[in-house]
Amino acid sequence: MKVLVIGANGQIGQILIDQLQQSEYYEPIAMIRNVEQQSKFEEKGVQTVVGDLEGSVKDLEMAMQGVDAIVFTAGSGGKTGPDKTLLVDLDGASKTIEAAENLAVKRYIMVSAIQAHNRENWSEQIKPYFVAKHHADRILANSTLDFTIVRPGILVNETATGKIKIAENLERSTITRADVASTIVSVLKAENTLKKSFDLINGETEIEVAVKAFE
Amino acid sequence: MKVLVIGANGQIGQILIDQLQQSEYYEPIAMIRNVEQQSKFEEKGVQTVVGDLEGSVKDLEMAMQGVDAIVFTAGSGGKTGPDKTLLVDLDGASKTIEAAENLAVKRYIMVSAIQAHNRENWSEQIKPYFVAKHHADRILANSTLDFTIVRPGILVNETATGKIKIAENLERSTITRADVASTIVSVLKAENTLKKSFDLINGETEIEVAVKAFE
Repeated sequence: MKVLVIGANGQIGQILIDQLQQSEYYEPIAMIRNVEQQSKFEEKGVQTVVGDLEGSVKDLEMAMQGVDAIVFTAGSGGKTGPDKTLLVDLDGASKTIEAAENLAVKRYIMVSAIQAHNRENWSEQIKPYFVAKHHADRILANSTLDFTIVRPGILVNETATGKIKIAENLERSTITRADVASTIVSVLKAENTLKKSFDLINGETEIEVAVKAFE
Repeated sequence: MKVLVIGANGQIGQILIDQLQQSEYYEPIAMIRNVEQQSKFEEKGVQTVVGDLEGSVKDLEMAMQGVDAIVFTAGSGGKTGPDKTLLVDLDGASKTIEAAENLAVKRYIMVSAIQAHNRENWSEQIKPYFVAKHHADRILANSTLDFTIVRPGILVNETATGKIKIAENLERSTITRADVASTIVSVLKAENTLKKSFDLINGETEIEVAVKAFE
């Protein structure tokens, strides 16, 4: 199963690429913005494709040729301003959804942010970012795709715990980026996560068990 | 017919309020952000209601009580940054649409921007603004409301001409704010503009004739 990782060069993206590469079921394809990022992936034997979230829907369709699933884990990041939040986190995401619909890619996993679905729980400082994530999630939920929206809590770089808590609504808490990546791998296999959305933090339950039991 | 004007204190908003006030069919209600803007409207005998586009959907529902139609002509404007573009032009608009749906207000007219529906025609400098308008328009078009999306060209303050051109796609050209307001008044009466969107510039055809003939 070919999985296109959009945002492959990001912190979650790089871990996810490695996990997919180690699995026997998945063949990751790293979508990168420019060819300079290529060698890092090719050295590991990971296929790359160049695709720009600020490009056209047609260009993104080119990057998606032949893939079975898409994981969107790109973000404009804290270093750029809210203009890039609009262009990348909202409209970039929207264009990948439109491209996936045009190609009937079906399976699409969005990495969002905890409580992005509840405006009253958005922290004041990063409200514009939540607006972009909220509406990208809604565009996906209204699409024809078999989506899953994963809304992780506060991202940390600690060692993976292998244990999570998932639910429609959770209190803001931490989750390691490695556990986010493992959850995505688990979601890719799980039928019960189709057309579902959930908050995600570190917790007491084994990832596979938590994902399988999610209602 | 009670028409709530969101953005009543803006340049198009003020002209629209006056035109609605002069008409025998309409009773304008000016939605204002703070009570300091109140006297200006009350001196003209125009009812006001306080409503904040950065507030909650529930607050916006309060502001919409008893109205028959809504015109959204608010904008964060050029003086604020793209953070306000996200909070006001996108999410503010989205919240008014959700509030209108919750109250079954039905008739909703959005003032958008020429070619907001075609990404390839967005000018580089104000792309983030077009992203916000594009997605606000899409949220409205996907809502349960009887919408009309009016996408005016380059706004100018010259005297009204009374003549316009409307179509799904038009070359970017100028339109007076007064003619935008008159077009909105005409659209409020026209059944053939329900669930439709169009570009709007100054042209050769009388406003009422152009609106009635719009396909």
